Amino acid sequence: MARLGRQGKMFMGVAFTLRVVALACAAVTLAAPGAEADQSSAARIDAARLQDTLERLSRIGRPAGGDFSSGVSRFAYSDADIEGRAYVMTLLKAAGTEPSIDAAGNIHAMREGAVAGLKPIVIGSHIDSVPAGGNFDGALGALGAVEVLRTLSDHHVRLRHPLEVVIWSNEEGGTVGSGLAAGTLSPSVLDGTLNGIRRREGLARIGGDPDRIASARLTRGYDAGYVELHIEQSGRLEKAGKTIGVVDGIVAIDEYQADIQGVPNHAGATPMPERRNALLAAAKLIEAVQEEVTRLPGAQVGTVGHLEVFPNVRNIVPGRVTHSIELRDLDAGKIKAIASRITARAEAIAHETGTRITIQPLEHDAAAFADPGIQKDIEGAAASLGLGVMHLPSGAGHDAASMSAVGPMGMIFVPSVGGVSHSPKELTSWVDCAAGAAVLLETVRRLDQR
Amino acid sequence: MARLGRQGKMFMGVAFTLRVVALACAAVTLAAPGAEADQSSAARIDAARLQDTLERLSRIGRPAGGDFSSGVSRFAYSDADIEGRAYVMTLLKAAGTEPSIDAAGNIHAMREGAVAGLKPIVIGSHIDSVPAGGNFDGALGALGAVEVLRTLSDHHVRLRHPLEVVIWSNEEGGTVGSGLAAGTLSPSVLDGTLNGIRRREGLARIGGDPDRIASARLTRGYDAGYVELHIEQSGRLEKAGKTIGVVDGIVAIDEYQADIQGVPNHAGATPMPERRNALLAAAKLIEAVQEEVTRLPGAQVGTVGHLEVFPNVRNIVPGRVTHSIELRDLDAGKIKAIASRITARAEAIAHETGTRITIQPLEHDAAAFADPGIQKDIEGAAASLGLGVMHLPSGAGHDAASMSAVGPMGMIFVPSVGGVSHSPKELTSWVDCAAGAAVLLETVRRLDQR
Repeated sequence: MARLGRQGKMFMGVAFTLRVVALACAAVTLAAPGAEADQSSAARIDAARLQDTLERLSRIGRPAGGDFSSGVSRFAYSDADIEGRAYVMTLLKAAGTEPSIDAAGNIHAMREGAVAGLKPIVIGSHIDSVPAGGNFDGALGALGAVEVLRTLSDHHVRLRHPLEVVIWSNEEGGTVGSGLAAGTLSPSVLDGTLNGIRRREGLARIGGDPDRIASARLTRGYDAGYVELHIEQSGRLEKAGKTIGVVDGIVAIDEYQADIQGVPNHAGATPMPERRNALLAAAKLIEAVQEEVTRLPGAQVGTVGHLEVFPNVRNIVPGRVTHSIELRDLDAGKIKAIASRITARAEAIAHETGTRITIQPLEHDAAAFADPGIQKDIEGAAASLGLGVMHLPSGAGHDAASMSAVGPMGMIFVPSVGGVSHSPKELTSWVDCAAGAAVLLETVRRLDQR
Repeated sequence: MARLGRQGKMFMGVAFTLRVVALACAAVTLAAPGAEADQSSAARIDAARLQDTLERLSRIGRPAGGDFSSGVSRFAYSDADIEGRAYVMTLLKAAGTEPSIDAAGNIHAMREGAVAGLKPIVIGSHIDSVPAGGNFDGALGALGAVEVLRTLSDHHVRLRHPLEVVIWSNEEGGTVGSGLAAGTLSPSVLDGTLNGIRRREGLARIGGDPDRIASARLTRGYDAGYVELHIEQSGRLEKAGKTIGVVDGIVAIDEYQADIQGVPNHAGATPMPERRNALLAAAKLIEAVQEEVTRLPGAQVGTVGHLEVFPNVRNIVPGRVTHSIELRDLDAGKIKAIASRITARAEAIAHETGTRITIQPLEHDAAAFADPGIQKDIEGAAASLGLGVMHLPSGAGHDAASMSAVGPMGMIFVPSVGGVSHSPKELTSWVDCAAGAAVLLETVRRLDQR
């Protein structure tokens, strides 16, 4: 399949041609011979309409004077977030639903099912972005879910289960809306601030009610299944030449803080052997983190992303360094073992450099595993559409992790060009966007039949 | 000789006893049999008086409620600096001179010589400190010079050359007073700020005249020699068990800025092999600096003291790191060679980590070599007083470096307990303070006879 170039500008220059190609491909792909011949299989997602809604949403929060390649700053609770949410609600209404906002700020739109008493199938994602983010993170899954709803509505296809589209609030600030609804986050999270806005006040701005969070809680076993379409935000699908990622689960995250105590001293007057250089110790520890994380095969990752030096002056031997250590993997036991090897390395480094090193655990987020049944549905859906699939873990957190605490969960990934995300350069080809939405629709159909 | 304990408090507790010991030692030492039998050799510095003036000065800028062990914050242009300068001028007047302040804020006091037409011998140091500094850095050399002047005056000893005591302004801010007087600094240095005070305004506060800096310039060849007594600020003398350091020169300093460009990316979604981690590259470069600096024998030092990470967020792979690299040695060629090996290592690290590294030279301060004749005078002076000597470079900058651009320069170091400096814990025993001042007096005598 055609893949768009990495450059947003080049991409914009050829948008018209590619759009035609995308439509053609989507039409071919979605009529692939593997599709089941049930009465609803004639209902196909409208790739052009999906692209159109993504383009329209991309204008909301776009930097002044920019174009599609400039990305968006539509962070939670901002004016752009409010405008984007209003736009999505217009679409949900046009699809014949009556969207509502729960106390946690999540938008819900319910379409009735044919069989009374069945639990809803829930699909959705988020439309808030990081500051200076891209046009696809969250937006594709949110508008992909809206497109599935519209397709079913346009073709008068009635599922057995109710279908519920949810646009989660404040995902980028830590899956706040879905976490409050699923009960994985305490309402006290609203006491913090995000991008200068107090979450409590921000939530009220978007129509939530911080004093009635309990009313937004979804009981355990609420839904028949939750399926979320999302861009991969990583380059594994692109590298493997696959269009659809079947997510095995969302990784566990262990956060640590390293504190290295040396002795600050004059950079001219202190001979090299006398130094107790905290930054030299930190350098060795950063390398040790890299080595211990990559020593074993697997998808585990480890990152030192935040580091501070004291006093941080050119001519003083650093007396203290603090830095983060973050480890992620689906297998919580594996990252615990890596952490204990890092701690052992830190002891040796402290000895070697004459410093004192402590490594403090800060936070542990458990892994969220995808439901095997939904994984099979996604595989089958992709195969029926002639799309190549690949299993992979999600290294990033998602609303789907919250929803795994409520009921069975699955995620569909589509490729991110160059693996770039949280950047205006974030890009997924329109062809892959349409393929993802088509797999979402087909997955819902399969889940509905079980 | 007795050496005081490292603890300021313990030190204070036994001050009285030690003072008596110091006096006894000084008396014995200064009457050592090696002393030349000229008419002035009866004039010996008064160790008790030197201690008394150092203790008095230490109260000016002392933290409220503190004691001697609390150190001083007497940074340039502050009220404490102004009060300390007034105190020293009182001492200079009591020694029969008429001190004046030049346009660069330096205090000069001239004592006439016996032979008309001879150039002055200049001695001195500074009394400004770093914030939260110690009681000896600068103060010992300044009050040591005052003590030499008072001793000669009290004993009515006339040198052949005029003797000029100079208390340089704003040494800790970058040898500003001496640099302006020697012409090694441009008056534009006054446009900057120091500890929140604009240097220009600060200079006016202490009696200088920022608009008439040229009037403070010392012509090349102005003096017969400049001798500065100073604490070592490093632990080499203590380690070697020597009392007197004969400084070979003040090291050359090469400053570089490293800029490492990687790619910022999601710490969860980016597999380890895909990362272009700027902080991992920085860690390897910091280790390379350490390795290349310590690979050769010698006193050269290299320091990464300042480092910044971008965006410096726990869950983002660092996209950019900038850090300082500072190299010092008496041999400018040696540090140039080390720098070029570091640059080669940086290229390999950039290749290995998929980053781009530039290393930009920022500043080169040439080495300032001590005059061999004055070094011999110091050696002879120490020997005549029965004190052990050791040659060593100064890794820290000093006013003496500025004065080496004007005429022959020499420096006398005395031990710093534990090598600690720029800290309230900075300590030099009273015995060593007295020994340093005695060597200064004897060096001046020898220089005067040449």
